[in-house]
Amino acid sequence: MTDAAGAIVDGVHVLPVRVYYEDTDAAGIVYYANYLRYAERARSEMLRHIGIESGRMMADIGLAFAVKRCVMDFLKPAKLDDLLTVETRLTEIGGASLSVDQRVRCDGADLVCMELKLACMSLGGRPARLPDDIRERLESFGT
Amino acid sequence: MTDAAGAIVDGVHVLPVRVYYEDTDAAGIVYYANYLRYAERARSEMLRHIGIESGRMMADIGLAFAVKRCVMDFLKPAKLDDLLTVETRLTEIGGASLSVDQRVRCDGADLVCMELKLACMSLGGRPARLPDDIRERLESFGT
Amino acid sequence: MTDAAGAIVDGVHVLPVRVYYEDTDAAGIVYYANYLRYAERARSEMLRHIGIESGRMMADIGLAFAVKRCVMDFLKPAKLDDLLTVETRLTEIGGASLSVDQRVRCDGADLVCMELKLACMSLGGRPARLPDDIRERLESFGT
Amino acid sequence: MTDAAGAIVDGVHVLPVRVYYEDTDAAGIVYYANYLRYAERARSEMLRHIGIESGRMMADIGLAFAVKRCVMDFLKPAKLDDLLTVETRLTEIGGASLSVDQRVRCDGADLVCMELKLACMSLGGRPARLPDDIRERLESFGT
Repeated sequence: MTDAAGAIVDGVHVLPVRVYYEDTDAAGIVYYANYLRYAERARSEMLRHIGIESGRMMADIGLAFAVKRCVMDFLKPAKLDDLLTVETRLTEIGGASLSVDQRVRCDGADLVCMELKLACMSLGGRPARLPDDIRERLESFGT
Repeated sequence: MTDAAGAIVDGVHVLPVRVYYEDTDAAGIVYYANYLRYAERARSEMLRHIGIESGRMMADIGLAFAVKRCVMDFLKPAKLDDLLTVETRLTEIGGASLSVDQRVRCDGADLVCMELKLACMSLGGRPARLPDDIRERLESFGT
Repeated sequence: MTDAAGAIVDGVHVLPVRVYYEDTDAAGIVYYANYLRYAERARSEMLRHIGIESGRMMADIGLAFAVKRCVMDFLKPAKLDDLLTVETRLTEIGGASLSVDQRVRCDGADLVCMELKLACMSLGGRPARLPDDIRERLESFGT
Repeated sequence: MTDAAGAIVDGVHVLPVRVYYEDTDAAGIVYYANYLRYAERARSEMLRHIGIESGRMMADIGLAFAVKRCVMDFLKPAKLDDLLTVETRLTEIGGASLSVDQRVRCDGADLVCMELKLACMSLGGRPARLPDDIRERLESFGT
């Protein structure tokens, strides 16, 4: 059984992702933008694991994490029906930002490697300091 | 030149839509859910033609059109690089609802035919009567 | 733990689906076309449960299931972070077609109900009879 | 009138892109992965302008351009109904690769800046030299 919410293994969040028709394109492989969808699912589940839900964070304290920068290396393509894993590592916790390393893997090989920088933002679009309890939860996950 | 906003021809709004990789799947054809994306683009442009913008309608008067029912017939598939047209006809204007006929065509043939029923909704999710000025604009388009 | 591949309960395939940012739109709810993505994920997992994989079916015997008709009723919207279930019932197995009933549910309520008619197609786009072993697997699932 | 295929202005391809509900998310802005969809639409239209169509290139000579690396900077968010432009500049033509600079703009401001490296690939997934006529067409566009 593969847990739809993923699991934490040695400080790394690991999310299983199955490739469906919706993810592929006419070249027979996963469309490049969809790796960012997978990455966001993985970050959401990683945050949920430590008690942070995007919807409640937005509704309760008016904050959201926004991606400010993203570097993607596409090494190998994924195909229909592949069972992928998305590994997510928190690499830095700043005053109002996070750095995250994510990689999409299949059968022991890296397919796509991503480095992201996220900012904590108010709903009005301004940078906001990470609230203390969110910072503590993130630190519990480890960098 | 093809106008990105489409045009009204004999009471029918006609929107050109090019098929890109993002729209296709591993079977080499347009993924079935994407015809609903095309249909929504066409309805948005049809409404914009008569002075109704979704974003402003939501912000200014707290209303949005929500699809309540949709019947889709898939006759022929579209392929990468195809230049499609989406035809939109308003078939009924009710007190708090609209009926719309939409078809996606290519080279003179129907690919997908859709009948939709839309409701005017408040942001809280309740049905709302069509405001008079919106009703008048819709009637000017003709059913 | 929620199984990412779903489970069969009393002849019904039940797939858990979490709502992420990618699924929502500016109205704060799941974008209407995305229910068709959820439905396809569910049909794929239902088929995988009885030993039929889309990618292998296409590569090995040159066949695919194509949606020919779809009736969707949108009853209630889903929101960010909701944990949905997609229920899939096979209602009819024809010579070259399938009928399927699918509903997306949350907290015991139906959100979207769908009736679909699928055709077995050759990659060239012609209708094809269901191969015997696929028919037997489908019948084992039950209608 | 805005041309759906864009135009070349001083060696830069400029494509208009309207933001629809499908592009936005529950934070009220364009979902981050969708800028890669816009970028691919723009590259496709830029190539079509110089006589290169992705579908025919794949069918006729078994080649496709695959993104190998992508650096994205997200400066400002786009919103529902915004009329964006995607600017595409060819910055380098290698033996089997291309470098491209793309930026998504609105009202004179940069929203997202992207640097991409694309490889010419055979359908089997191997790097392939750029055919002479494709190279000439690309050089006519200018770097």
